[in-house]
Amino acid sequence: MAQNIYDDPAFFAAYSQFRRSREGLDGAAEWPALRGMLPAMGGHDVVDLGCGFGWFCRWAIGAGARSVLGVDLSANMLERARVETADPAVRYAQADLDSLELPEAAFDLAYSSLAFHYVADFARLARSVRRALRPGGQLVFSIEHPIYMAPSRSDWATLPDGRKVWPLDSYLREGPRTTHWLVPGVVKHHRTLGTTLNVLIEAGFAIRRVEEWKPSAEQLASLPEAAQELDRPMFLLIAAQAEFGTARVLAQRPRVR
Amino acid sequence: MAQNIYDDPAFFAAYSQFRRSREGLDGAAEWPALRGMLPAMGGHDVVDLGCGFGWFCRWAIGAGARSVLGVDLSANMLERARVETADPAVRYAQADLDSLELPEAAFDLAYSSLAFHYVADFARLARSVRRALRPGGQLVFSIEHPIYMAPSRSDWATLPDGRKVWPLDSYLREGPRTTHWLVPGVVKHHRTLGTTLNVLIEAGFAIRRVEEWKPSAEQLASLPEAAQELDRPMFLLIAAQAEFGTARVLAQRPRVR
Repeated sequence: MAQNIYDDPAFFAAYSQFRRSREGLDGAAEWPALRGMLPAMGGHDVVDLGCGFGWFCRWAIGAGARSVLGVDLSANMLERARVETADPAVRYAQADLDSLELPEAAFDLAYSSLAFHYVADFARLARSVRRALRPGGQLVFSIEHPIYMAPSRSDWATLPDGRKVWPLDSYLREGPRTTHWLVPGVVKHHRTLGTTLNVLIEAGFAIRRVEEWKPSAEQLASLPEAAQELDRPMFLLIAAQAEFGTARVLAQRPRVR
Repeated sequence: MAQNIYDDPAFFAAYSQFRRSREGLDGAAEWPALRGMLPAMGGHDVVDLGCGFGWFCRWAIGAGARSVLGVDLSANMLERARVETADPAVRYAQADLDSLELPEAAFDLAYSSLAFHYVADFARLARSVRRALRPGGQLVFSIEHPIYMAPSRSDWATLPDGRKVWPLDSYLREGPRTTHWLVPGVVKHHRTLGTTLNVLIEAGFAIRRVEEWKPSAEQLASLPEAAQELDRPMFLLIAAQAEFGTARVLAQRPRVR
């Protein structure tokens, strides 16, 4: 079961002040890269897993999607999403991604922004999303990068010799991470990049693209302090595709002789 | 062009003392994991890219391969490989992986252990290997993990508060890394995990498995100090498969609307 921290009043108040909460997609530094991994929306049925305030749902309709289902655990977020969404082709539903069941072969695109790292059982979710996609359908999502999430203290550190570094530890120890982010006690679930990819492959996805996000040249020019973001990746962006007929051949694990 | 550090006398003397140089595959901690990603060898034509002393070439023949071509840049290593290999089904050739050309559709398996991080142009090599594989053929390889290779100083560090950490920096700055490893001036080429995977996908491979190596429970029990290896991955192991007919559909990058 995923923690519903977004319905914590102090967390929600602080999160609502973020640029991405006030300005939407264009307020998120990684959005241009994520948008670049999306298929054309025209005529597609889309599901947004962890839709928050519904910014992407409304963008997808504007970009030509036929329908969008936004799913979120937070009643707070869905309430604002509903108020701000006029188009009847967008529906919202409250659900925990750790127990979500979706209709079979009902979507052409599953999208998710910074939500899957709250999910404890990613293998279950990946299978559920795979079943919900039509053959050739796509899954495009972002999560906190495991390098960002792994450390026992997830913050820059200065070494005695003056080097400012990202103090990595525990990368290969998978499991929950309880951090202070806006409020104390926020629970995320650390998985290595390898595990995330293998779970998708085993669920019947072909990996199409893996982006360890970094600021663009334009972003670096307008905000020089963003250069520090080159020292460790904050976001991981993945595009995967529900396999066609050859799925079983490609996904088959060979036996050792 | 890859640096030929293995023909440096001081480097070669030191490298020859390593357990993996003296004992072969069983002297390499990551070998059981890499072996677990290999297809059955029976009747296969195999190429080993960066074959070193030929340990894998001889193992593959013993495991049923029909033929093995071992390729390496180092004359020193090939000389010993030839002396220690009796089976005429194993051939050796001296070549730089940065300019290697292989016969088309000639192999069922391309294997490589800890060699590709010396290659400057991985995209060129990936396309070359893809063409050399028969449809459905496999590429299984290990490299130094990019988390291990990225830092400006690639060694454990202790923070003022006592935490022992892996001091990550420059992860998203790809390019050569000159390190002191056995001798000064060893040149490796850092690419992010995402870049390595995207290069393979764009060359026509389907990603089958991505292992960020860690010690097994058995290895941890027999060598408690190996627990530190859980703080950051040292090796990256990848299995990929030359795509069948659906390759173009799966590898196609979608356009943004």
